[in-house]
Amino acid sequence: MGGLNATHDPARRSWIDSANAPGTDFPIQNLPWGVFSEPGGPKRVGVAIGAHILDVTAAETAGLVRASDAPVFGGGTLNAFMALPQDVWSRTRAQLADLLDAGRGPRDGLVLVAQADARMHLPVFVRGFTDFYASKEHASNVGAMFRGPENALMPNWLHIPIGYNGRASTVVVSGTPIRRPLGQLKAPADAAPRLGPSRKLDIELELGAIVGTPSAMGRPVTTAQAYDMIFGFVLLNDWSARDIQLWEYQPLGPFQSKAFGTSIGPWIVTREALEPYRAATPERAGPLLPYLHEATPNNFDILLEIDLAPAGGAPTTISRTNARHLYYSAAQQLAHHALSGCAMETGDLLGSGTISGPARGSCGSLLELTWNGRDPLPIDGGTRTFVEDGDTLTLRGWCEGAGRIGFGACTGTILPAPPAPA
Amino acid sequence: MGGLNATHDPARRSWIDSANAPGTDFPIQNLPWGVFSEPGGPKRVGVAIGAHILDVTAAETAGLVRASDAPVFGGGTLNAFMALPQDVWSRTRAQLADLLDAGRGPRDGLVLVAQADARMHLPVFVRGFTDFYASKEHASNVGAMFRGPENALMPNWLHIPIGYNGRASTVVVSGTPIRRPLGQLKAPADAAPRLGPSRKLDIELELGAIVGTPSAMGRPVTTAQAYDMIFGFVLLNDWSARDIQLWEYQPLGPFQSKAFGTSIGPWIVTREALEPYRAATPERAGPLLPYLHEATPNNFDILLEIDLAPAGGAPTTISRTNARHLYYSAAQQLAHHALSGCAMETGDLLGSGTISGPARGSCGSLLELTWNGRDPLPIDGGTRTFVEDGDTLTLRGWCEGAGRIGFGACTGTILPAPPAPA
Repeated sequence: MGGLNATHDPARRSWIDSANAPGTDFPIQNLPWGVFSEPGGPKRVGVAIGAHILDVTAAETAGLVRASDAPVFGGGTLNAFMALPQDVWSRTRAQLADLLDAGRGPRDGLVLVAQADARMHLPVFVRGFTDFYASKEHASNVGAMFRGPENALMPNWLHIPIGYNGRASTVVVSGTPIRRPLGQLKAPADAAPRLGPSRKLDIELELGAIVGTPSAMGRPVTTAQAYDMIFGFVLLNDWSARDIQLWEYQPLGPFQSKAFGTSIGPWIVTREALEPYRAATPERAGPLLPYLHEATPNNFDILLEIDLAPAGGAPTTISRTNARHLYYSAAQQLAHHALSGCAMETGDLLGSGTISGPARGSCGSLLELTWNGRDPLPIDGGTRTFVEDGDTLTLRGWCEGAGRIGFGACTGTILPAPPAPA
Repeated sequence: MGGLNATHDPARRSWIDSANAPGTDFPIQNLPWGVFSEPGGPKRVGVAIGAHILDVTAAETAGLVRASDAPVFGGGTLNAFMALPQDVWSRTRAQLADLLDAGRGPRDGLVLVAQADARMHLPVFVRGFTDFYASKEHASNVGAMFRGPENALMPNWLHIPIGYNGRASTVVVSGTPIRRPLGQLKAPADAAPRLGPSRKLDIELELGAIVGTPSAMGRPVTTAQAYDMIFGFVLLNDWSARDIQLWEYQPLGPFQSKAFGTSIGPWIVTREALEPYRAATPERAGPLLPYLHEATPNNFDILLEIDLAPAGGAPTTISRTNARHLYYSAAQQLAHHALSGCAMETGDLLGSGTISGPARGSCGSLLELTWNGRDPLPIDGGTRTFVEDGDTLTLRGWCEGAGRIGFGACTGTILPAPPAPA
């Protein structure tokens, strides 16, 4: 893999009209993977094509697609398929593109479902969730706010793709409501903490890398191997409670402030589909240790946006940024993750960390966009410092250039906090 | 549950002689759960009884034990059984005790395997691994070493059962060798980090609580509910690389320094078997928020030991301590874990954090036992500051009083570091 092939040809068209419409996220060059169901029906694996989903589970049963000797699309997740060698990912993708090519047409056993009629599910069983901190601008902004501008970046940050283990049990698919968390809250001036709903509920715009190929315990991997282990990418919103985080995070890092929900987009855009949009990481501020060197550009040029809509109100785009701002690529993050001998598993999800660009309006969190609430943002019918109950946040991402491919939307609406346990 | 019953009767004896021997960890009052295999055979669920294992998978097939309408012991882990209601855990345990009671005897379909002939496996699929920091003495010792005696405890420590998410993919069963990790190393005086094997490889003596009953996302639980959610406990060694940890841990906590391996004992001692050994948490240094209050003593009086044996040498007991030193009980840890609405799942493993008592010889890590290497420990044929290649570490735990029940041993031997990735 790594090269361009017929599935990338920008001139290629599908017999499904909506896949050829300008501005669609899902032309034949994309074919992102997801898991869907129709009312009352079982979960099925599919790829998005225009306004439709091609039912890959049905196509496998009908013999139109074949990834392996045994069926792999029947389990309600993509894990069995992702565990197959990467040349199988590529060959299967090519089979699907051929089925949808404008030179062909509908045939027996090929099932298309309108996206509007489908419910999306988590595309993978998330084995482990790790969250990184790979945007230099984000780390600098947060550091400046909490430790002062002279200590904005910790000394380790320019050497290590800093990350921490997150909570896999609350990774949910786009559209799942998120309940405002309870937590211990203590402002610096308070004598003691109190229990209450977070008052600084935030978003973090991230890209999530999904590991397909596992690595063995005790076996570090190179950045080139790490790149090949990645099956694809999703939009990711790492909901965060800044007030809970401030009181809990020392010395072992964020815990309950990040554990109440992480939303991911329904569509996994494959690494192969992103090949035409590879981009270099930003200029290095200092040398990296050899195990983090990369011989190829392993970032991606992905445009990203955040919309915020209050209950009953219209959305306002509050940030526009790009994944190429990430100082460490997903391959570098994964190589670092495995450095100690940590086994990586099929279905592991690696969040990039909040993606922020150099300008205020290109930041990926309200913490930065409002500078910890100091500068409220105008939105439809009011202003925002942090997220309010009833607000709906939507992330979008797409690539432009050799055509356009996109990630769809990753949305979540905030519900009020539950009562305290008693 | 919560009360004592016939399975706790200290006078009860088994028809298996080795279960009645003084000093056995596995009398009829214990019946800890594990997963084992014989050479060339499949994984089976069993309970330890004296020097043997009762094959519960075979007993279920033979109709001697019945937990549910459908078989639950055939999957090679205990997760399906642990997901059943806790009264089923208790009833099944009583059935097993009746099968092994001295008033009965061998019968058709009852399979016993000598522990010496069995290979043990991970008893559960570890869904998530969380590590706490619940010993006040340990937190104070580490804080004093790295931040000075006046800042030994962080201000949040007396209010929050501090914890962080660990890495589930490298939780391994006792006996699995552990490879010394590579990592970024930088002493404070070094100008830049270098890549190398950890030179401060350490142990952490912990108790691991295994969650049986799940909780829903967005639903906090009380400490009483949390106590009931716990299926049982295992010995746990949270291997740690102190030099990697020192350079990486700010601001998001330990990551690769804890990711290369976590050993757990093969036997899950049930919460029910531990009922006679319940103990109060230590005196509170300050008030806790109501969600952490406990109406019952939720700690356990468990004696713990660490042995260190060099390659080819005899073991030396380097620490003797007790789980009752833990400032926060497992129920308090779990209630805090779910406070934000974090969903808890069957198979979640919650490490207590290093268990240290007030005396130097009752500390659960070499970091404390040798005061960061300043005071080497005498062992067979030499001394130790941190763990050397070829060393075997063994944890043991048992309860005394109303009879004796034990956890068996949790061992691990250190292999040399792998070559750097290139």
